[in-house]
Amino acid sequence: MTIAKLAEAAGVSVPTVSKVLNGRSDVAPATRTRVEELIRRHGYRRRRGPGGGRAATVDLVFHELDSAWAIEVIRGVERVARAEGISVVLSESGTDPGARDGWVDSVLARQSVAVVLVFSDLAAAQRARLAARGIPLVIVDPTGTPPDDTPSIGSANWSGGLAATRHLAELGHTRVAMISGPPDVLCSRARIDGYRAALETAGLRVDPALLRTGDFHVEAGVEAGRRLLALADPPTAVFAGNDLQALGVYEAAREAGVRIPDDLSVVGYDDLPLARWVGPPLTTVRQPLTEMAEEATRLALSLSRGERPANLRLDLATSLVVRQSTAAPGRR
Amino acid sequence: MTIAKLAEAAGVSVPTVSKVLNGRSDVAPATRTRVEELIRRHGYRRRRGPGGGRAATVDLVFHELDSAWAIEVIRGVERVARAEGISVVLSESGTDPGARDGWVDSVLARQSVAVVLVFSDLAAAQRARLAARGIPLVIVDPTGTPPDDTPSIGSANWSGGLAATRHLAELGHTRVAMISGPPDVLCSRARIDGYRAALETAGLRVDPALLRTGDFHVEAGVEAGRRLLALADPPTAVFAGNDLQALGVYEAAREAGVRIPDDLSVVGYDDLPLARWVGPPLTTVRQPLTEMAEEATRLALSLSRGERPANLRLDLATSLVVRQSTAAPGRR
Repeated sequence: MTIAKLAEAAGVSVPTVSKVLNGRSDVAPATRTRVEELIRRHGYRRRRGPGGGRAATVDLVFHELDSAWAIEVIRGVERVARAEGISVVLSESGTDPGARDGWVDSVLARQSVAVVLVFSDLAAAQRARLAARGIPLVIVDPTGTPPDDTPSIGSANWSGGLAATRHLAELGHTRVAMISGPPDVLCSRARIDGYRAALETAGLRVDPALLRTGDFHVEAGVEAGRRLLALADPPTAVFAGNDLQALGVYEAAREAGVRIPDDLSVVGYDDLPLARWVGPPLTTVRQPLTEMAEEATRLALSLSRGERPANLRLDLATSLVVRQSTAAPGRR
Repeated sequence: MTIAKLAEAAGVSVPTVSKVLNGRSDVAPATRTRVEELIRRHGYRRRRGPGGGRAATVDLVFHELDSAWAIEVIRGVERVARAEGISVVLSESGTDPGARDGWVDSVLARQSVAVVLVFSDLAAAQRARLAARGIPLVIVDPTGTPPDDTPSIGSANWSGGLAATRHLAELGHTRVAMISGPPDVLCSRARIDGYRAALETAGLRVDPALLRTGDFHVEAGVEAGRRLLALADPPTAVFAGNDLQALGVYEAAREAGVRIPDDLSVVGYDDLPLARWVGPPLTTVRQPLTEMAEEATRLALSLSRGERPANLRLDLATSLVVRQSTAAPGRR
């Protein structure tokens, strides 16, 4: 379907179709809706960028940029895009739906070839606006179950939760706590289920008092760590929702005069570079963030070329990295 | 100067001038040189972006993206750009001059409104290509002394080196080592001079055996830390080139059974978020990376609007943040 044919079918001028495709606001809403509906029905494949290919961009969008986590993802996207001569436009979507509409406008105006969305989601209407222009969307580490037609790259969260907890059970811990990320987020649920499965397999009771939740920042780990250590029968091991939460548990342990790993074993999640360098070096579940980002970018660029990849959803493997923050209990 | 007048003066067509402005390669080199020379002489102010403003981008370029450091800078640039409805294009320049030429092509093709370059530099020819299109360049944390006409935002490195070393001297340390960043980089030189000034002011000898250099990664800190601790008369305090190097010194101390701060005081540089959470929490010099990035972006966008800011070069203040990695010597 060419722009000329779209214009004819919609009964509007070619410049008007072009304005709709480029997300301009000076188009009557009814016209915009009619053109978008036609594009949806007949398809339209955009040419790449205005500058003979060298101007091509891919959009990378984070919910928030304030974590050491983000740089791991950025590096993967940048590496794959650069190899194809495509520039990366980075943005923070925030939580304001109005701001997100503005962001979609800007993606359309720049004629980005694809969007990689990290640990976040778009409203159906926003997804539809991208789809109507043939701009593919790939989600990295989806927070919910994306709609069937949205490609996504995640990692094996259930297996990660299982491996972390099994490691602690095998060391002989029977009071194993978990601090989870927000429970409404898919990866948190999967890790909690892995934790439960490992405890049950080891014949250990799942004590609800030992399961805490919090966001993915250090402070949440401090808070949950304090509460766990203040229990009458405190845990001897904690599986934290991510490495930052684990650092928070380190802090709570220091405050309470609890030694790691002698009095308390701690396992993190992600394996950020800092995990190697904290004291003691952190046992953690490696989530291949950079590889996930690379895979998502390859998938997004492949879709933008009109290819039909075999797999639109992939979970990459996680693995346990044992360092010095875990040991057998009862060494006190 | 309009495109039409430039074309007339150069004796070429309007589309040819347009091609030169947009960095297209299908222009004879002699023609390109002639047009660029005219633009340089007479000036030319670009309109903003092809998409009615919403497509406007600013380019943020790192020498390398693999450090927790980068995210602090990215956040500042993204925040200021977003407030003006401008998207951020992120790239890693690498060290290959050919790849950098390709990157300049892509900036021109995308008609970026400005470039923010971090801890890096461009060849004069590449700077000239940007200048010829009226695309302003601002350098954050310049590695060398930028040419007079290049705006830059740095921080008070000499004062930072002085404050860190004075803190250690005031605690009573007389054997204070320094691990510096690469000595050909301006900020390293300034910090070394601050270190020397503090020692001399305190009446302490500057011992060349206690001054080490390395790149800004953890491994360099491990290596330098090992060598310092292996000296016949080892230091009782180390001022590291950045927080990552300081973590390397932590690692070397652990290996050698040296306790921090009981046996060895350590000061870092940057105050990355992780400095608060390592064990023990790191005393460090706070470099306001996010603010530096914000200031540089404001300056770049102001220049892109044709404004003439009063200050094209600024150094923001640094400050010492005392945590638990420093103490009086001789507690062993």
